[in-house]
Amino acid sequence: MMGKIFVLSSPSGGGKTTIRKHLLKQCPLVYSVSWTTRPPRQGEKDKEDYFFVSERAFKRKIEKSEFAEWTRVLGNYYGTPKEFLEKEIKKGNVLLEIDVKGARQIKRRYRKQAVLIFIAPPSLRELKKRLENRKTENRKEIAQRLKLAYQEIEQVNKYDYLVINKDLKECTGDIKAIIRAEGCKL
Amino acid sequence: MMGKIFVLSSPSGGGKTTIRKHLLKQCPLVYSVSWTTRPPRQGEKDKEDYFFVSERAFKRKIEKSEFAEWTRVLGNYYGTPKEFLEKEIKKGNVLLEIDVKGARQIKRRYRKQAVLIFIAPPSLRELKKRLENRKTENRKEIAQRLKLAYQEIEQVNKYDYLVINKDLKECTGDIKAIIRAEGCKL
Repeated sequence: MMGKIFVLSSPSGGGKTTIRKHLLKQCPLVYSVSWTTRPPRQGEKDKEDYFFVSERAFKRKIEKSEFAEWTRVLGNYYGTPKEFLEKEIKKGNVLLEIDVKGARQIKRRYRKQAVLIFIAPPSLRELKKRLENRKTENRKEIAQRLKLAYQEIEQVNKYDYLVINKDLKECTGDIKAIIRAEGCKL
Repeated sequence: MMGKIFVLSSPSGGGKTTIRKHLLKQCPLVYSVSWTTRPPRQGEKDKEDYFFVSERAFKRKIEKSEFAEWTRVLGNYYGTPKEFLEKEIKKGNVLLEIDVKGARQIKRRYRKQAVLIFIAPPSLRELKKRLENRKTENRKEIAQRLKLAYQEIEQVNKYDYLVINKDLKECTGDIKAIIRAEGCKL
């Protein structure tokens, strides 16, 4: 029996990291830790939030076709190691937290297993506020991320589900329901 | 915004009536009461469990094309009044409890709104036990219903979801998750 690949995407500041941590506690899911060349933010742990690697190491892994998907966002690389993912979906459900372009690659490659969930902020005004509050980006970076958010939200029609992150409990409840329902799908 | 039509089917004795009553208490659903020519069982209420009608009245409604679906099962007619259903899905979700043949008609007619859920007993042995215990059918009728159950279970591939009714709470939890997840679908 194969598991499914649940892909969470949301604009930066959409709250997906908090949601992910809740889900991993409450659902039968294994988290696929991405590789990235982006420097760690305050509080982020290597091998848990990301594998923080050099650009050289990342590119070598691209050349060996060892990513299930990879993308470059705002100058940084992000990728999902293929071997781990394909080993884990043989045993059960896997959770991915990746961007819109990566999600499309996963859908193409694992059409039957992939379930794409887009987590949207209640509004772009709210998103801006969250990005400002977390104080990990400067004003230019916030502007870049907001522009990217616009572009990503336009891609939402590629997704299977849309969940609005207005209230954390409601939002994780929706995603838990999606995971449970997908387990009953024929 | 339109609602969805959640169709519950299960072999006779599969427990769908108990499940339906739980769901109606806990979910945003309106129940579509079917018409039937079958005589009421002990405890069944007219206009609540079914509209118990004469064969003549039923056939007149067929002629006027006033059913969204109708079928004949073990000599009795069952049907879903079209007007009520189509009025209610304009406002929100509707729950139908109908047989496999009726479910296929609903799927054909309301492809975008219909969500078909099959509730299966953990085993046919268990189903036989339940039918015997409820003491509403004689031995010949039980044999007929079991034969029908075999035929219905073969049709499960026409359904969107399969839920096993081993434990009532688990089973209603699955269906609640399906209803919630369908509300997030794009």
